[in-house]
Order: sequence, then C-alpha cells, then structure tokens
Amino acid sequence: MDTYRTDDIIYALATGWVRSALAIIRISGKGCIARFAPVFTAGPKLLSAQNGTLVYGEVKGIDQVVVSVYRDGHGYTGEEALEISCHGSLVGIQKILDTCGRLGFRQAGRGEFTYRAFAHGRMDLTQAEAVEELVDSMSDKGQSQALGRLNGSLKAKLAEVRKQFLQVMAAIEVQLDYSEDELDEFTFPREQLESVVHAVEELDATYQVGRLYGEGAKVVLAGQTNVGKSSLFNLLLHEQRAIVSPVPGTTRDWLEERVVVDSIPIRLYDTAGLRESGDIVESEGISRTKGLLAEADLVVYLHEDDDGKVPEGERVLPVWAKNDLVPHEGLAISAKTGEGIKELLAAIATRFRKRLPESEGDVVVQSRRQHELLGEIVKDISSALALESQGVPLDIVSSVLQEGLSALGEITGAVTSAEILETIFSGFCVGK
Amino acid sequence: MDTYRTDDIIYALATGWVRSALAIIRISGKGCIARFAPVFTAGPKLLSAQNGTLVYGEVKGIDQVVVSVYRDGHGYTGEEALEISCHGSLVGIQKILDTCGRLGFRQAGRGEFTYRAFAHGRMDLTQAEAVEELVDSMSDKGQSQALGRLNGSLKAKLAEVRKQFLQVMAAIEVQLDYSEDELDEFTFPREQLESVVHAVEELDATYQVGRLYGEGAKVVLAGQTNVGKSSLFNLLLHEQRAIVSPVPGTTRDWLEERVVVDSIPIRLYDTAGLRESGDIVESEGISRTKGLLAEADLVVYLHEDDDGKVPEGERVLPVWAKNDLVPHEGLAISAKTGEGIKELLAAIATRFRKRLPESEGDVVVQSRRQHELLGEIVKDISSALALESQGVPLDIVSSVLQEGLSALGEITGAVTSAEILETIFSGFCVGK
Repeated sequence: MDTYRTDDIIYALATGWVRSALAIIRISGKGCIARFAPVFTAGPKLLSAQNGTLVYGEVKGIDQVVVSVYRDGHGYTGEEALEISCHGSLVGIQKILDTCGRLGFRQAGRGEFTYRAFAHGRMDLTQAEAVEELVDSMSDKGQSQALGRLNGSLKAKLAEVRKQFLQVMAAIEVQLDYSEDELDEFTFPREQLESVVHAVEELDATYQVGRLYGEGAKVVLAGQTNVGKSSLFNLLLHEQRAIVSPVPGTTRDWLEERVVVDSIPIRLYDTAGLRESGDIVESEGISRTKGLLAEADLVVYLHEDDDGKVPEGERVLPVWAKNDLVPHEGLAISAKTGEGIKELLAAIATRFRKRLPESEGDVVVQSRRQHELLGEIVKDISSALALESQGVPLDIVSSVLQEGLSALGEITGAVTSAEILETIFSGFCVGK
Repeated sequence: MDTYRTDDIIYALATGWVRSALAIIRISGKGCIARFAPVFTAGPKLLSAQNGTLVYGEVKGIDQVVVSVYRDGHGYTGEEALEISCHGSLVGIQKILDTCGRLGFRQAGRGEFTYRAFAHGRMDLTQAEAVEELVDSMSDKGQSQALGRLNGSLKAKLAEVRKQFLQVMAAIEVQLDYSEDELDEFTFPREQLESVVHAVEELDATYQVGRLYGEGAKVVLAGQTNVGKSSLFNLLLHEQRAIVSPVPGTTRDWLEERVVVDSIPIRLYDTAGLRESGDIVESEGISRTKGLLAEADLVVYLHEDDDGKVPEGERVLPVWAKNDLVPHEGLAISAKTGEGIKELLAAIATRFRKRLPESEGDVVVQSRRQHELLGEIVKDISSALALESQGVPLDIVSSVLQEGLSALGEITGAVTSAEILETIFSGFCVGK
C-alpha cells in the first residue's frame, strides 16, 4: 500500500490458508452490508440485522456460511463490518474472495484491519502492536504479556508518564509565555523531570524481559566437528530433526527449531562444526556458523578436550561432551544417554534469568520500536537537564524536552507519520 | 472413539493449526454455556445471550475473543453450542483448548460436530458426507457439486426414488397380507420396478463425474529414462518442483502435485524412468513407478523413438518428446520451448471428458460408499425381477426387494449401524 485509506471496503482471509473445518473471511468498510447482501441468499435479513448478531445463509452458489454482523461504531475495526464463517475448503474460500473482488472490495494489506481499529480510536499503537505480538507469541509468558498490553496496561502506564511530563512542560511554558516580572520566582522542575526519566527507564528496562519472552533467545550449538552437536540438538527437540552420522562435517546448512526451556522460548540452532575443511559446501556451512555465533544470545559450546580453544565470555556456556574417556569438571552431557541434559537446560535458563531485572513487573515492553523511543525520551530529558544546569536559555531547554514529548506521542500513536504507521502495520499478518 | 456419544460437551479447533489473524474453537453440548461462563469476563452476558448473537469478552487471562452463541435446537449441531473467535496465536489457542479440557469438555473426534448435526436430524448422511466433500474439493466444479449435495439435492432425488420404491413394496405387501380371493387379480409391478432401477442407474452413472471432479484423476508421466518427464512435470506445474538433470535416473522418489486442467482436477505424478538399473535406490523408484502405472487413470507416455515398447490402450496417451532429430506423427511436445503443451492439455481433458455421461445432470454422486450402495440396489431389484419371472414365490421376491430398500436407507442414514457411521465420520477433519 502507499498510505492506508479508510474510506473503502477491504477484505481478507483471516484464518490460515489450509484445508480445515472452518475459515473466516473478514470484510470491513462503510456500506459493505448493502454491497454484500445481493450475493447472499439471506440478503434482506442481513440488511436489517442488528449489530452483534449472526445471519445464516448461502453465498449464492458458493457456500453455506454464517455471517457475523458489525454495525458502524462497533466490532474490531469500529466500522460497519462482516465476518463470514465458511467451510475451510480452499476452492470455496477462493470463490468467496473472488466474489469480494468482483463486488469492488479491495484486498486488505497487512495489518489493515488493525490499522482501521487504530484510526477509529479503538486502540492506541501499543495495543495495535500487542495484537501482532500476541499472534506471534512463542511462549505462555510472552502471550500473557502481549494480552496485558492489548488490554491497555502499557497504554495506561504511558498515559501516567505523559501526564507527569505535561505538568512539567506546562510550568515551563507559563514561564516562557510571561515576562519574568509578571510571575513568581521560577524554579526549574528538575526533580519532576528526573522522576519522569526514572519512570521511563524503569519501563524500558522491561524490554529485556519482553524481548526474551516475546521473540525468544537465540541459542547456538557450536563446537568442534563431530563432537555430538546434532545429537544434542535432536535430544533437546525430542525428535530426529538433524541428520546424525559419525562422519565429520555431516551438518552443513544450519537448522533452526523452537523449544521452550523453563518457560523461556528458545530459537535453537544446530551448526556446522568448526574446523578447516576442504569441502566447499562444508566450508560455506562453517562460515555461516560464524555469522550465527556473532548474533547469538547464548552459545552452547560443546567440546571434548580442553585444547585452549574453548571460547570464554558471558555469552558462552562451555559444555563437555561426555565420552567417559576424558576426565572433566563442570557441565557435561552425554547425547547418547541423555545424562546431563536436565542440568544443561537449567544452566541455560539461569543464564537468561540472571540478565533480567529483579522485578519483572506487570507492564512489559516487547517492541523494539517502543524500546528505541523510550531511549530517546530518556536521552532528550537528560540532555535538557544538562543544558539547563549549564545555564542554557529556557526556550532551548524546552524545545529539547518537546522532542522527548513527541517521542512519547509516537509510542502511542498520538504523534505519527504515515511512514511510521506503514512500518508498524506492514509487519502484521494479512487479515489482522 | 468407540461409538459416538451425544450427551457430553465436545470441543475442537475448527481452523488450521497455523499462526494467523483469527482462529475458531468450537464447543457443543448441553450445558456448555453455563460451564464456560465462569472463565469468561462477560459471563453474565453470555448466560443471558440469545441464540445467534455475539458476545465480546476475555477468556480470563488468555485472550480477547468474540463468542457466537447457539441455543439448543439451533446452529450447526442443533445443540447448545459456542464458537470462540480468538486471535490466531498458537500459544493462545492451546491455552483456550487446555481451558476447555480443564472444564471437563471432551476433545471432539473427527467429524463429531457433523455427526451431532446428523444425529439431531439437521442433515442426512448424503449431506454430512457432502460437508467433507466440500472441504476436500479440488476444483470449482467438484466444490459446486458438493454444495448441491449439502443443500439436499441428492437427498431429494433419493427421497423421490424411495417414494416410488415404497409404493411398489406397499402393493406387494398388501398381496402378501391377504389371501388371493380377498383381492382383485394381482399384477407384479414389473414396470414400476424397472423404472426405479433406471432412476438408480442414472444416478449411479454420475459417480464417474463426481469422482473425477471430486477426487481428481491420476495422471502419471512415464516413459524411458532421461526423456524429459521431469521437465514436462515442471512445465505443467509452472514451477521447478522436480530436480532436472541430464543424468539418466535423476528422479527416484515419485512426486505428486495437483493441477487443474480445463476445470478437471488432476493429480499429476512424475516418476522414475523405466530402464534396467544397477542403482538400488533407482531400482526401487522404478518398481514404485510400475505400481503407480497400475492405478493411473491416464498414463502420459513420453518417448523419443518408436521402438515398439510404447504401451497401448485406452488409459495411455503416447507423446513424442520432440527433439527435432526424429520425424514423428501425432502429439509431440518440447519441454524446453513449451511447444505442444497446450495440445497435450487439451488431449488430456478430452480423454477424461469422453468417458463421462453426455448429460452431467444436477445431482452428482461422489462418495464411493453411495456408489456401492446404489449398485446394490440395482442388483437387488434386478435379482427380484429375475426371480419373479422364474415363478419364485412372492414372499421371497419381496425379501430381496427389502434388501434393496435397506441399501437405499443406508445411503441417507435412515438405516445405519454404528460401524457404518464410524467409517463415514472418521474420514472427516477434526473440528467439523
């Protein structure tokens, strides 16, 4: 899309494109009921249907369906809308979508239903983003946190911060609007601003939690070749996902699978073993492994000797590949018997938990966009505080604070550009 | 399931198990509304909701949803039922399903919602089967025919036949119940029975059409090795599905893809080329090719010389692999340039069309079960007619006719055993 419009009728399949018992096709926009009625056997009933009711009938010659009716001002988008619950036949779904096209409805872009909900004031941007975070959630906790945001927890928290911020700005504006002699002596509201910064920083600190439970953590299995990485990978997944063989260099393409460890969603990667290789395909695999290692939240480094090549650091968890030949201390696993797996999982969970703020709080930020804007607010207010203490004139200090306020507005969508909106909603799935 | 029950509450995800904008969880059974209300924030509203209305609320702590309410005697199953339209988050869906389990609801077996619709007289068996045929349909035509059956076209046709059949049976029963001197002279209703047979045969003849448009036709690409089968396969699919190489014996596993040719749904198979091979994997591929050939509705046999090995028969369509070196007559294609593809497709469609009855009719049988039962009816009535002309006593003739009547009852479900029902519904998808 170029920019989102809200003056036409959009449609999309809102359920998965798979053969199934039922499917839902969403239609939203002013006049959609009258436009759809002629192709529906229960057209007259549909025309007079009240908001929040179901009408059974046939999309003529295509399928027996139940239509949910939303009148203007109600429902998800806040517009006149229909949700067609039809049979999950791919052929039938396509025929209904084609019918929508023939009726002159426009295929919805990604996130366009949610955009309309936002545009009609049904939700702010933190809630709109929460919809997609909810759908995308990989763990119980991430899903609950997204539901909290959808319910407006983050919106409420930001409203609080904004109120505090606006009070400060009001006091400064009054000072700027009137000459000094008209007013009592002015004290710069440093403490109040520091309290705003503190609140924003606290909120921003939850991003580590939100990111971990929302997107999941990248855990890369690495180590020398033929040390048992793929066996461990399969063991952690409880399935024979990776091909295992005694031949060094069996794994070439890296594999990614998802697994939840102690309620933390993990993106687990099996990689090509690190060694000099004459095989072109394997060498390419090794080079890709190095790329993955750079991005990893945690590297589980499997090794069977202590040759001094085991990497160190906060992001590395060295693990002995137990083969009963070499004596060792510390974490050790046997991919053959499963011995040590429980301890490994606990160690992985502990590593991630250690990085989290002590209290996880009720309101958790998951969106990188929101995280970056929160950072900007902190930066702007801090700059303003520094400038003020250097004696910079109040109008300049105020303009810096205005930037922070505007960043706050961007988070909720009170202040936005078409470009920002497009960036947000284009990451959605269609039909949402 | 052992046998279907209808006295408890069942639940299932009715949409695909994929991340998507929306998903539907179905719940059906007496008392489900009161049982579900406590875990729903709008519980009181749900309890008093009228049939055919929507209630918005939160499955507590899990998801914001819209619930469709069906009161006893309404909706798909004809029972008290709920359809929860939730966000298409896999984690969230699982949490709601878990909640249903904790509430003591039972996970629905395949086709169990439709079974309840049947058990409560909302549809007969031909309609119940049409639901699955609709969901499974592979082509526009197959989908339309299934919709016709769902709307009761086949049910009505069978009711007509049954009425005719019952009239005959009534006349015979009267003759058997009274002594000959109490009645006028009896003429065996041969003509009426022949008319019943004719109607049943006509209906059964539509099975060829129903099967073709419903299940699709098996078309196998076969021929010598390295003759261009995989190139042709890719060309017909408009994608690089099969690996193509100049090395003979590249294709080992056969590949199946679906394609619609002139509105006929085709299951297209690419196969290992037929040759003597020393390679074990390739030999296994060739042996599987032979199995596929035996089941094919049509074999497209690609060849580049006329070595006398090209098979013949109604099920074979020989096609020259055009390489511009060998002169040839008849159908020829060049997988490289696409030359001749249009003619090949037309020839395939013609082959299938030729086998169909001239008038395809409005009512089309697709189910093998129904087809077999129609055959039984024809057999039973024909036997009865033969017995009667051989002077066999009327009570014996009548008992043979009763078997035909019972077969007719089995088609619609007027006469059924638990075993038959299980066979039918266990082929359904869950949530239907």
